[in-house]
Amino acid sequence: MTFPWPEPGTALRDVPTPMPVIDEARLAANIARAQSYLASHGLNFRPHIKTHKLASVARQQIEAGAVGINCQKVTEAAAFAEAGFDDILITYNILGAARLAELKALNDRVALLTVCADSAETIDGYAGAFGDGKPLAVMVECDTGGGRCGATTPEAAADLAARIAAAPGLRFRGLLTYPAVGGAEAVQDYLTRTMTLLAARGIECPVRSNGGSPDLWNAHLVPAATEHRAGTYVYNDRSMVRAGECGPEDLAMHVLATVVSRPTPTRAVLDAGSKALTSDLLGFADHGEIEGLPGARIVALSEEHAVVDLGDSAGPPPAIGDQLRIVPNHTCVVSNLFDRMVFHRDGVVTRVEPLIARGTVW
Amino acid sequence: MTFPWPEPGTALRDVPTPMPVIDEARLAANIARAQSYLASHGLNFRPHIKTHKLASVARQQIEAGAVGINCQKVTEAAAFAEAGFDDILITYNILGAARLAELKALNDRVALLTVCADSAETIDGYAGAFGDGKPLAVMVECDTGGGRCGATTPEAAADLAARIAAAPGLRFRGLLTYPAVGGAEAVQDYLTRTMTLLAARGIECPVRSNGGSPDLWNAHLVPAATEHRAGTYVYNDRSMVRAGECGPEDLAMHVLATVVSRPTPTRAVLDAGSKALTSDLLGFADHGEIEGLPGARIVALSEEHAVVDLGDSAGPPPAIGDQLRIVPNHTCVVSNLFDRMVFHRDGVVTRVEPLIARGTVW
Repeated sequence: MTFPWPEPGTALRDVPTPMPVIDEARLAANIARAQSYLASHGLNFRPHIKTHKLASVARQQIEAGAVGINCQKVTEAAAFAEAGFDDILITYNILGAARLAELKALNDRVALLTVCADSAETIDGYAGAFGDGKPLAVMVECDTGGGRCGATTPEAAADLAARIAAAPGLRFRGLLTYPAVGGAEAVQDYLTRTMTLLAARGIECPVRSNGGSPDLWNAHLVPAATEHRAGTYVYNDRSMVRAGECGPEDLAMHVLATVVSRPTPTRAVLDAGSKALTSDLLGFADHGEIEGLPGARIVALSEEHAVVDLGDSAGPPPAIGDQLRIVPNHTCVVSNLFDRMVFHRDGVVTRVEPLIARGTVW
Repeated sequence: MTFPWPEPGTALRDVPTPMPVIDEARLAANIARAQSYLASHGLNFRPHIKTHKLASVARQQIEAGAVGINCQKVTEAAAFAEAGFDDILITYNILGAARLAELKALNDRVALLTVCADSAETIDGYAGAFGDGKPLAVMVECDTGGGRCGATTPEAAADLAARIAAAPGLRFRGLLTYPAVGGAEAVQDYLTRTMTLLAARGIECPVRSNGGSPDLWNAHLVPAATEHRAGTYVYNDRSMVRAGECGPEDLAMHVLATVVSRPTPTRAVLDAGSKALTSDLLGFADHGEIEGLPGARIVALSEEHAVVDLGDSAGPPPAIGDQLRIVPNHTCVVSNLFDRMVFHRDGVVTRVEPLIARGTVW
């Protein structure tokens, strides 16, 4: 069978479910608002494409003023390079002969390709692959409190920068952080201390890249930074509303679902399970919020079912066949489950676009 | 770029990561063991393809003696029908004009297509679409304790069966349950009570289909059943080991991952995040088990990173670039993230096969 992806002009109520849909007006507003805020503080913006994996959305972000894009994988970067993007930062330690060979090919194809490193091993791998030809731009990843990757002290970061600067085939481009926790003060402190150490060693550090949608609206509190990266902001999600980073009117993605069973007066079952919403909780106790049914809770997901407890719901009880709109906990992982994305304006489908980097391995 | 899917003969240590891989010998043993157990108790087996979404694995299951396959979506069933499978049960309430039209086309193409219903609304939808032509076989879904879909009492189930039996275009085929909790006794009790009610009304009930991998090895405790359905058993996973349903030697899927960062002596970061492992916890507090590193805990996932706490690890500390093998919490959702599946025998790649029903919508 050929799956009936909706034609332009289709009303959302006739879109097959479970299906994420993107509100074009909210998407455009989210892009414009973030760009305008960062520009007003003299910060470059480099949106992360992991959230949408769509060429058209990345193009909208660039047209709004973004300096380039951020990817997490070599294969994402390759897909976006093929789509014409020429300033790409991969915020990842890239290891292994096959990945490095692809990275070298990509560096030759893209005007400005930048990667990151948080260890001597990663830097030495880059240096081994890029000894000749066009140099590779490398940033040092700093752990400013996120507790994931990154050099844990400014001294360690400066040492790694010196190793990059000294390596043939590599070019030190700056510092990078993903401050999931720690706050603006910790980022500002780490960056300025590292810049001082680098200045003392005569190493230029042109780019200081701060990141994350949760920290987007505090980006101006890190004057040491030159750019900010963010992905989720483009669609927003339930976690962003809870964090106060956006309002319900800024939610650009909803997952449409159909009520397939009403086994008891307080239970409804929907056709959006963990293969549509994912199991990402992000601190929530339930699996998304149903618009128009305050108090209803998605208490359990199996792969193709959501179990909704209506016991505390104030809304009208949904009937079998009704279509509901779910605000997902986390939009970036929902996108990654679907091969195409459906867009709408005021509830009418405008277009359907294939994701160019879904299901990429490395 | 063309992604370097591994050629047959490649050693697993050279397979790109993050990547799930399937052990051919364990897969075959899992298929044979379940089939043999159910056959020895006179039960038919109907494996659920949601776990693998692969034509070759479904063929192995049929060749081992399965009576047919179980799907969860119309689009999965359509993909497997195109691959030649002709006895397909869709354990889902199928609603809406577009889905029902596809279901009707599928019914004409497949020797035996069966669906289920747990409400008058669903049955009436089937009856409306199947008034003429080849009748649709419909089972009644029973809630024997699972708390998801299903008629909540034998009386309600019998009423639904009578509604199916009376509808032109439909054929009542039997009872169906997915007893996630409740145990064999509850299933046996519900089925026998319903069968008694149906017999009193003169309604034949040829098939009683019990289900679930967690209940697979207790299937013989439900003599009222004629068949069992299970999906996860084919690969098994960490949740199955914990439940005592299999041993570590029965784990057919591992997710290969590479250590990309060692920021501190007790922290390692791997390249398998929630876009490779999913966030399914299934009651665990962490995100999979790393073979050969007892005590190491995957404490956090972001989309492309796993953060491993080595504080209590007894194993040799992993180095940057090392490849590790992760036993995922839940295999069925891992499969669904990847477009192809890599098979190996004794650590050497045997083949790579496209999933024929990944990312299906309904």
